[in-house]
Amino acid sequence: MRPAADAEVDVGIRIYALAARLYPICRSITGDGVRKTLQILGQQIDLTQHAVPTGTQVLDWTVPQEWNIRSGFIKDASGRKIVDFADHNLHILGYSAAIHRTMPLSELKAHIHTLPDQPDLIPYRTSYYSEQWGFCMTHNRFLAMEDGDYEVMIDAQKADGHLTYGEYVHRGSTDRDVLLSAHICHPSLANDNCSGLALLACLAKALRGRKTRYNYRFLFAPGTIGALTWLAHNETNAARIEHGLIVSCVGDGGGPNYKRSRRGDATIDRVMEYVLSREGRKGTIKDFSPYGYDERQYCSPGFNLPVGLFQRSAFGTFPQYHTSADNLDFIAPEHLASSYRMIMEAIDVLELNWTPVNLFPKGEPQLGRRGLYSALGGDKSAGETAMAYLWVLNLADGAHTLLDIAERSGMAFHDVVRAAQLLRDNGLLGETL
Amino acid sequence: MRPAADAEVDVGIRIYALAARLYPICRSITGDGVRKTLQILGQQIDLTQHAVPTGTQVLDWTVPQEWNIRSGFIKDASGRKIVDFADHNLHILGYSAAIHRTMPLSELKAHIHTLPDQPDLIPYRTSYYSEQWGFCMTHNRFLAMEDGDYEVMIDAQKADGHLTYGEYVHRGSTDRDVLLSAHICHPSLANDNCSGLALLACLAKALRGRKTRYNYRFLFAPGTIGALTWLAHNETNAARIEHGLIVSCVGDGGGPNYKRSRRGDATIDRVMEYVLSREGRKGTIKDFSPYGYDERQYCSPGFNLPVGLFQRSAFGTFPQYHTSADNLDFIAPEHLASSYRMIMEAIDVLELNWTPVNLFPKGEPQLGRRGLYSALGGDKSAGETAMAYLWVLNLADGAHTLLDIAERSGMAFHDVVRAAQLLRDNGLLGETL
Amino acid sequence: MRPAADAEVDVGIRIYALAARLYPICRSITGDGVRKTLQILGQQIDLTQHAVPTGTQVLDWTVPQEWNIRSGFIKDASGRKIVDFADHNLHILGYSAAIHRTMPLSELKAHIHTLPDQPDLIPYRTSYYSEQWGFCMTHNRFLAMEDGDYEVMIDAQKADGHLTYGEYVHRGSTDRDVLLSAHICHPSLANDNCSGLALLACLAKALRGRKTRYNYRFLFAPGTIGALTWLAHNETNAARIEHGLIVSCVGDGGGPNYKRSRRGDATIDRVMEYVLSREGRKGTIKDFSPYGYDERQYCSPGFNLPVGLFQRSAFGTFPQYHTSADNLDFIAPEHLASSYRMIMEAIDVLELNWTPVNLFPKGEPQLGRRGLYSALGGDKSAGETAMAYLWVLNLADGAHTLLDIAERSGMAFHDVVRAAQLLRDNGLLGETL
Repeated sequence: MRPAADAEVDVGIRIYALAARLYPICRSITGDGVRKTLQILGQQIDLTQHAVPTGTQVLDWTVPQEWNIRSGFIKDASGRKIVDFADHNLHILGYSAAIHRTMPLSELKAHIHTLPDQPDLIPYRTSYYSEQWGFCMTHNRFLAMEDGDYEVMIDAQKADGHLTYGEYVHRGSTDRDVLLSAHICHPSLANDNCSGLALLACLAKALRGRKTRYNYRFLFAPGTIGALTWLAHNETNAARIEHGLIVSCVGDGGGPNYKRSRRGDATIDRVMEYVLSREGRKGTIKDFSPYGYDERQYCSPGFNLPVGLFQRSAFGTFPQYHTSADNLDFIAPEHLASSYRMIMEAIDVLELNWTPVNLFPKGEPQLGRRGLYSALGGDKSAGETAMAYLWVLNLADGAHTLLDIAERSGMAFHDVVRAAQLLRDNGLLGETL
Repeated sequence: MRPAADAEVDVGIRIYALAARLYPICRSITGDGVRKTLQILGQQIDLTQHAVPTGTQVLDWTVPQEWNIRSGFIKDASGRKIVDFADHNLHILGYSAAIHRTMPLSELKAHIHTLPDQPDLIPYRTSYYSEQWGFCMTHNRFLAMEDGDYEVMIDAQKADGHLTYGEYVHRGSTDRDVLLSAHICHPSLANDNCSGLALLACLAKALRGRKTRYNYRFLFAPGTIGALTWLAHNETNAARIEHGLIVSCVGDGGGPNYKRSRRGDATIDRVMEYVLSREGRKGTIKDFSPYGYDERQYCSPGFNLPVGLFQRSAFGTFPQYHTSADNLDFIAPEHLASSYRMIMEAIDVLELNWTPVNLFPKGEPQLGRRGLYSALGGDKSAGETAMAYLWVLNLADGAHTLLDIAERSGMAFHDVVRAAQLLRDNGLLGETL
Repeated sequence: MRPAADAEVDVGIRIYALAARLYPICRSITGDGVRKTLQILGQQIDLTQHAVPTGTQVLDWTVPQEWNIRSGFIKDASGRKIVDFADHNLHILGYSAAIHRTMPLSELKAHIHTLPDQPDLIPYRTSYYSEQWGFCMTHNRFLAMEDGDYEVMIDAQKADGHLTYGEYVHRGSTDRDVLLSAHICHPSLANDNCSGLALLACLAKALRGRKTRYNYRFLFAPGTIGALTWLAHNETNAARIEHGLIVSCVGDGGGPNYKRSRRGDATIDRVMEYVLSREGRKGTIKDFSPYGYDERQYCSPGFNLPVGLFQRSAFGTFPQYHTSADNLDFIAPEHLASSYRMIMEAIDVLELNWTPVNLFPKGEPQLGRRGLYSALGGDKSAGETAMAYLWVLNLADGAHTLLDIAERSGMAFHDVVRAAQLLRDNGLLGETL
């Protein structure tokens, strides 16, 4: 991968700094952590916070109660804290029920989650839709616990309130939408997904100064229930989504990875394939599968939207995934910057892609007369520029986009774009509606 | 291939025993041998014998006369029998004209068929539609014949009578049919096709105790003319055939082989591809070609039925093919049992395959609430069971069968079936008509 | 490649001799050279000369003035001719403006074209649509030029006149056309394209004695502007073109090469793929690209005709291309003969290809009764002849041509043709309109 230019290092540093501010917050699918996160993101862009009351029916689901936690710990018989929420918010099972009791280790064990194969890491575990309480800790600490009584305390509350999500729309010149979405429900996990939240906020901010054809809809919503809530309340907006990306785990040095939409051959699928193959990036393209992030909801058969998943390392494949090792050391400004650049490139392709119509479709128009073709004949091959003109004119039958033309000709997309623009400027091309 | 379970050994022994009873009978495309064979098969299942008179026009063909043979031999000058029909019914050219004359070897030679490359085997030869007489013998015996006069006698008769075939229909709950057909016209050839006749009779018997969706139509008919006769008289029934298998040479240890229907992508083609790839079976799939057994007739362009050919060793490829070496030593209960199991598996897939419709197609339905999803979140991957639910729900758009879903997801068909059943039981899936 | 038969050697010699007569003529896109060439070709076939006046609008282009040249040279201070048009007509830039002046080398240099990497060859350069004058010479001669004044003289004239092209139509029994076209605008370049002109003239002559289904339209026209002129004046004729080949560079020993039409799967594309794969020819098939010869015009999106390009060595890939080394030593009778044969084979396939309809589509018709099938049954496989019958009958559903059947069955096209003919003679096949 080429060394990032200075501007890109800058954007990487800005994304990293924002992710670092989000990292310590204890988020869940509802509650103060989400609101605090949205408030920080809102300092970048004019974010709209939507609050949907507990109990609201959203498709097959119901908006749950808000969960808020103040503290939690396990104390041994001597009063020493074995685990403490204050040390790491992964220590408490996400959405855990409250408890305050003393009990023997034998009883407590069933409520402790560890990673025997990664004995120094705390796992990330949740129980959103089943009433449980629990602690997560390193396996080594767990093994050191001696028989006896322990005081366990989780000062958490579930109460009617709201599900909160943030939305920001950059308006373009058409009523066609691009969706960019990152999940906001994970606590202190840097790559998954402080990285995605921070990247999209910075990208939205950067877009403000740019005239676009598409509207860019940014969603910062809790996984699953957030996407379902948005879909339930935005059927008309959903129908306008022509391209979409779920963005997560974009701060590490792996990948890049792209998982295709359910359609498999959507424009966004081909655009990402193009972006991930540029400049020696050895991106991996995977077919859709119905496990992952919110592409599960957008690609459900009743919506079947052209939404894919962009990541660096793919979820579930890196050892830090869903553990305390997914921390601020695991992500880096340079990786955030290159992820940012790839998404920007995809946006560039979407913005620059159009469907040309040759206005002189019978025979070649005389390019030489218009200064678009070498005056001297007899060369072995046309130059690259002339080839781009010839390809665009030949395939400009209203059935090929510029991306199609780039794919079929094997020419670089941006060379095709430039040629089409010059041909249009010379009155040789029109554009289909 | 996994060791056959006891029940399968049993069925293999039963099929073998039945094939062994059929083996000695001298069959041809018409005559007593066919009727005797149908009578034996009729002890297993309530077979209907159809008798179509000589001279009946069937499509482009005419039902031929009945051929029956009592005896046949060649005697040398000393009165010693060189070949005798009583020793092996392959010794007489199938459907041979009668003869009783004494002639020199030089004249007799033109009527003797041997296999110079397999000098100890008797070939199987016929002449149904051209009036000829002839003998088949080992090449070594032929070479030992000395010049001189020979008495040749074939006491055979061609006379108006009937073409006979057997039919058995297992009734299912719909008016959709599956065809299972084996040719009944070969004399003492064990694999080709006592094996297929016996296997299908035992399979039909086994189906009696089973409720099915499809009707299963079993045909035991002489090759070519039998299939043509059935098709000529059953155009309406033919139109109901949704899947079909021709079954022959299913008693040896080779293959398995499946030849696709002319359509090439019929459901039966995909089902057999699935069955032949299971459990380490290294089945071979071949494209349709218009030479072989009665798939030639069912796949003629005017019918173009989805009927393929299932075999162990493919016809024409094994040295015993159409020789006296295709005897009861060449087939074995274990191979008959595994062939039986593969066809039963294909039937299982056909019976269990349906087209689900997700009744909650917008977003995922909440599986956890219904006890179909792990309560605890955060795992690296969904379990196999959860993945099966997610795949079925995602592709249950009315355009994918469970077999489609298995193929696209890479999951085992039966896991997909089980998941779909549970989802239907939970009110999440409907079925297309 | 098999040794050419005598008749083919003969045709190769005749084509070579004709090419040799065309070689010395100085052709351009207009002028006397084109007319003289057409007059020589017209000695083979009854060619129609079309003359389109200067200034005529043809599609986006305008017919240019006629260019005629009498002489041209560069003389050094001592009066010695450095280059002389009389020595080689490549010495003058094609369509060069006239000039007669004395000037220093420093000024002259900008008008001299050489090939530094091939210092002994004269390049071929033109300037049709931009007013320039110039000389082409070997790089070594150029390097030897000393500073000083030179007299430069080009006695050429541009004046209103006509663009000329030749056309010959061999009439067939239908109103369906095949286009065969060669460019006539290159001066002394033997392979590019005296070879194509001579080959097509000889082929047209050979066709005169033959009854064909298709009309064969032969075009001998200047590149680009000639094709555009024909298309502009022949829209109805263009619409009748069902197959077409551009023929150029067919005299060297390379290739063969075929570039597909823009459609990519036109019948001519499949026919040429068949021809180029026969008898161990290791032909190369390339996808369409919009640079090359007049396929650029025929395959422009407003026409999109099924016209491909046939060559031996592909243009631009051989070192002699567009240099003085593309002379009569570079082409040979044997290569012209084998190119001729390949095009004739393509014509044979087009003429012999038809769409059979099985008149007995239900089941197989009884071939034995008609003497088309072996009387004796029991063989391991049907013979090749029987297989051809079976394949044709099976696929004769009105949706497959004989070429389709050859491709699907893997049988040789001519075996399929022969089988279909015999089946038709026996009343088993009809032909779709």
